[in-house]
Amino acid sequence: MIIIMRPDATEEQLEHLVDVVTQAGLQAHISRGAERTIVGCIGNDALAENIPFRAIPGVEDFVRILKPYKLAARESQPEKTRIMSRDVVIGGKEIVVVAGPCSVEPNSSIFETARAVKAAGAKMLRGGAFKPRTSPYDFQGLGEEGLRMMADAREETGLPIVTEVMDTRDVELVYRYADAFQIGTRNAQNFQLLREVGKYDKPVFLKRGMSQTIKELLMSAEYIMSQGNREVILVERGIRTFETATRNTLDIAAVAVLQRETHLPIFVDPSHAAGDFRYVIQLSLASVACGCDGLLVEVHPNPEKAMSDGAQTLRFEKFEKLIRDIRPVAEAVGRAV
Amino acid sequence: MIIIMRPDATEEQLEHLVDVVTQAGLQAHISRGAERTIVGCIGNDALAENIPFRAIPGVEDFVRILKPYKLAARESQPEKTRIMSRDVVIGGKEIVVVAGPCSVEPNSSIFETARAVKAAGAKMLRGGAFKPRTSPYDFQGLGEEGLRMMADAREETGLPIVTEVMDTRDVELVYRYADAFQIGTRNAQNFQLLREVGKYDKPVFLKRGMSQTIKELLMSAEYIMSQGNREVILVERGIRTFETATRNTLDIAAVAVLQRETHLPIFVDPSHAAGDFRYVIQLSLASVACGCDGLLVEVHPNPEKAMSDGAQTLRFEKFEKLIRDIRPVAEAVGRAV
Amino acid sequence: MIIIMRPDATEEQLEHLVDVVTQAGLQAHISRGAERTIVGCIGNDALAENIPFRAIPGVEDFVRILKPYKLAARESQPEKTRIMSRDVVIGGKEIVVVAGPCSVEPNSSIFETARAVKAAGAKMLRGGAFKPRTSPYDFQGLGEEGLRMMADAREETGLPIVTEVMDTRDVELVYRYADAFQIGTRNAQNFQLLREVGKYDKPVFLKRGMSQTIKELLMSAEYIMSQGNREVILVERGIRTFETATRNTLDIAAVAVLQRETHLPIFVDPSHAAGDFRYVIQLSLASVACGCDGLLVEVHPNPEKAMSDGAQTLRFEKFEKLIRDIRPVAEAVGRAV
Amino acid sequence: MIIIMRPDATEEQLEHLVDVVTQAGLQAHISRGAERTIVGCIGNDALAENIPFRAIPGVEDFVRILKPYKLAARESQPEKTRIMSRDVVIGGKEIVVVAGPCSVEPNSSIFETARAVKAAGAKMLRGGAFKPRTSPYDFQGLGEEGLRMMADAREETGLPIVTEVMDTRDVELVYRYADAFQIGTRNAQNFQLLREVGKYDKPVFLKRGMSQTIKELLMSAEYIMSQGNREVILVERGIRTFETATRNTLDIAAVAVLQRETHLPIFVDPSHAAGDFRYVIQLSLASVACGCDGLLVEVHPNPEKAMSDGAQTLRFEKFEKLIRDIRPVAEAVGRAV
Repeated sequence: MIIIMRPDATEEQLEHLVDVVTQAGLQAHISRGAERTIVGCIGNDALAENIPFRAIPGVEDFVRILKPYKLAARESQPEKTRIMSRDVVIGGKEIVVVAGPCSVEPNSSIFETARAVKAAGAKMLRGGAFKPRTSPYDFQGLGEEGLRMMADAREETGLPIVTEVMDTRDVELVYRYADAFQIGTRNAQNFQLLREVGKYDKPVFLKRGMSQTIKELLMSAEYIMSQGNREVILVERGIRTFETATRNTLDIAAVAVLQRETHLPIFVDPSHAAGDFRYVIQLSLASVACGCDGLLVEVHPNPEKAMSDGAQTLRFEKFEKLIRDIRPVAEAVGRAV
Repeated sequence: MIIIMRPDATEEQLEHLVDVVTQAGLQAHISRGAERTIVGCIGNDALAENIPFRAIPGVEDFVRILKPYKLAARESQPEKTRIMSRDVVIGGKEIVVVAGPCSVEPNSSIFETARAVKAAGAKMLRGGAFKPRTSPYDFQGLGEEGLRMMADAREETGLPIVTEVMDTRDVELVYRYADAFQIGTRNAQNFQLLREVGKYDKPVFLKRGMSQTIKELLMSAEYIMSQGNREVILVERGIRTFETATRNTLDIAAVAVLQRETHLPIFVDPSHAAGDFRYVIQLSLASVACGCDGLLVEVHPNPEKAMSDGAQTLRFEKFEKLIRDIRPVAEAVGRAV
Repeated sequence: MIIIMRPDATEEQLEHLVDVVTQAGLQAHISRGAERTIVGCIGNDALAENIPFRAIPGVEDFVRILKPYKLAARESQPEKTRIMSRDVVIGGKEIVVVAGPCSVEPNSSIFETARAVKAAGAKMLRGGAFKPRTSPYDFQGLGEEGLRMMADAREETGLPIVTEVMDTRDVELVYRYADAFQIGTRNAQNFQLLREVGKYDKPVFLKRGMSQTIKELLMSAEYIMSQGNREVILVERGIRTFETATRNTLDIAAVAVLQRETHLPIFVDPSHAAGDFRYVIQLSLASVACGCDGLLVEVHPNPEKAMSDGAQTLRFEKFEKLIRDIRPVAEAVGRAV
Repeated sequence: MIIIMRPDATEEQLEHLVDVVTQAGLQAHISRGAERTIVGCIGNDALAENIPFRAIPGVEDFVRILKPYKLAARESQPEKTRIMSRDVVIGGKEIVVVAGPCSVEPNSSIFETARAVKAAGAKMLRGGAFKPRTSPYDFQGLGEEGLRMMADAREETGLPIVTEVMDTRDVELVYRYADAFQIGTRNAQNFQLLREVGKYDKPVFLKRGMSQTIKELLMSAEYIMSQGNREVILVERGIRTFETATRNTLDIAAVAVLQRETHLPIFVDPSHAAGDFRYVIQLSLASVACGCDGLLVEVHPNPEKAMSDGAQTLRFEKFEKLIRDIRPVAEAVGRAV
């Protein structure tokens, strides 16, 4: 922590600041510049984390030097985390494609979809039983019945299943059926939910919040990890910006930044980023070339009839094309699909 | 709902679209322009809500005409909603100032603060017992002990109390102690939590999400209202933008837009918007002038020692000045404090 | 300037950095912390401005301590700048309302408007002769003819006139007719144009760029001032965010931040911020309460027929109401209209 | 154009609207829905472009159906535009890499760089003689001397040269030396400058504004094209968002959206998007995989000593690696480098 004093700060104010820092268990190190005095806090930055420096008289600003995340930081674990979900390796050389419908629907299409995406090359099945919908009047998911259908689809195809959990009260239920939890973008800072899935021993696909910075995403991972569960997969799914040509703006650079900052696997969800099926393949190609460890893709036998997110959902043929198209790009960057 | 066809859409595609619309229970109304054909859907827009028009061949785009919120809409209730919390009227002529510390702390400062803000003119007491913190290593609140202290402070001062609830499992507990719920910005689209507080009969201060549009905020209110609880107070607290001079960007126009769109009371939280105590009074003045129904202000006897958000917290003298300063502005716009 | 080394930076890298800093004419001051070493550069920060620290091996990040603007900074001139435009004082106790149509049109409405806004209480007349339009097919302004009409309207009413200049080649021409230049939001970082108006001795209304930070706005002012012209008026006119309910998001806090950072007068343009005449009065009230020094408001006898920006333009009656409404608020905050 | 009436709009208001539309030369087509009446305007949308519908009593909102850009639209020219700059084909199968320093500097490094980037595989040379710098106190470029050095470097290497023009007064000068103009991000809506380069017969690299939508970027291209110059190359270079981990947020989806919307070639500038040399190669890979037609990359023999943008500039070895790395990805998507 470095504290920058105002140009008109008095000696008394400086002394008071030094007291505050010292009482927090840190050493203060004063440098008097031509125009400003700065105070370095030496020791464990976490001790200074909660001091409201800007509220202290004479202080103009302060700068945090150490990163607030520890367990998620690359510095704490240089080698990449690999996660096993049944026989699927996440975070290895192979790019893992997770595919399936937005919602599990009250018909047998989840089975049809599971077979089709498996045949095309998907390694895991996604599908929502609990759906966060912007409107309370929209279809909210089938709940436990949906989970059961997902589990049956796994039975039939062998694909491990990923599904969203939205409520701390449902974590145990979802745990019983699913192979991996998904935390949705709207719950990316629902800290109670993060904590709750942190107590279980199954992987968590953590989607980035719509306006969450990369640092904050890592702090959300840290919440999960701090409870014991180290199997967190980060998912870039587009952020909210002024541009409306796509539903969200895929922050492709987040893949590169996260690779440097963390050892956790990094996935991309091109479907939610684009919000439009016509752009999903191109965004997938870009993500694979940029170095992602996997993709989350929405697929449905007939998007026109999908109960949610139809506009961004691929038909089977398009999904097959996606896999065919990303394969040579994956190889070009030393990966495989 | 109006659907715009692609310039190269075929007659067959148009017929297929008309079928889809008709099967959804609406009437299709075709207008052939010089360059484009458009199809109006006449009937209850909600029936068309879930049709993924962009996934239908030949469709270029579609436009929603009706607003997705109903209970929250001004059209459904022209007169402004007034909410009583004990003897405090929210949404009336008087601007209601809710003040108190960010967190209730394990010392007696909540009592000191309650007395001070009451003396200055606050009408309700705020304070957090459950705290959403970006880092899992930061102080997370006192939980039930904090609620008890809040209740004791109410006992002493008569101020109704507002406190945040973050977990569906805690709603009943918070209900027992508090006079009003607060839903924080990070839970603005935690739909399970919204639904849960919607089942109780106490007012809900609903904070706008950091990247939530005004429409989506009204949809979040709709979630609560759809469960029966009509006592929702909307809180503008700044949105996330590229500007970093303030913690968030106070969207002051949201006050004006919401007044037109909804009958619900509208509050502003200048403390979180600014993130800096030096700007809180000016933002309060702006909010009152713009027509807000109340303010949520962070106050602490010694912000330097506050366990959270100290930088944006007012000392007692500053809070007294805030009340003194907003009073003539309130009068200038036909309100009172 | 403070430079933060990577945790694995070597002694050689540190020495190399110290060399770079020293060669730039600064003193390096090394502090070795438990986890990081930091290097403070003591001396004139401007000397270090152009060193690409992040390109130097072993460097993780750097922090600028001094502000890059000098002439615009409050620190360089504690008392507020007052600017005279004919007999109008800008930056004094009185809030200056500048009003008029978006474009000067090829009919006599500019005269009608000038009389009406003067009668209502406006102190200056605005109107565009050169118009920056998003489409090349839209009306682009009357050019010199428009300037002449503005000058005639001044002749008749005595109101000093403000008009936009968009091209370095037109600065001299605009100077001959107008009392003050306006630099539009799309030219906020057209540095050649800023420099050019900086060579003249008439006030410049500098609009904030749509995605310009407050710091960058001050740097744009600095460009003008560095050429000799110190009469810069900063105009907050809304920034671009994800919210589309208004044309732009009025960053009301910018008024408060700028008051602290600079001595230059601060205006607000509620018309462009809102993009909707229904919100212009409320945004004006908020701006006045927050402490702005003036307003730029679009007024037209018949907005329906305005050749540009009709949706955000006030009719005469509405403008009269605006003045009537802001007056008591101005008084409530110790100002006058 | 479709106009949506307010639910309480009167018959008189409707008639008045129909009059306005008819007078503009369009036909009005009324559809009365259960809750709203909508009015379609049939004919040439451009005629309605300037009607401020929201200012007309009874109107709630309106929707533009036709796109405002014509010459730039894919609909007006289905086949992709190919541009020749000397012997380089832009917009063909081959991905064109344009490389060079941010600024031409007063030493011989431009020659060294030109030789190195050519040897590595670059097809054009970039370099700034006129530099838009945020601070007036930073190095502003060498002006004509820089242009001369660029031309000499072309002489030696045969690489066509691209350089920025910032002032309408310099267009003719830049035209004499350069093979292609560059319009920088800060001038993306400097319409006078766009118009001016539109009068010349050399290609224009048009950078997207920091907060410019894709539609507005196409309108800026339209400005150039409307003057006769059809050789516009669009450059995505990152937009401004809340994320600060990178200098800008590369909007990779813009490449896909633009491919659908326009026939113009699309380049990506990964250097300005990242603002950090460590991410430039990954962003280049993503851009090539996504389908861009070329890259603009900053290269310098010694970024530590570069007079601008050193942090995002590649050394020669890194640039060679970039070319080596993108080559197999280009082949994987059916292109070449």
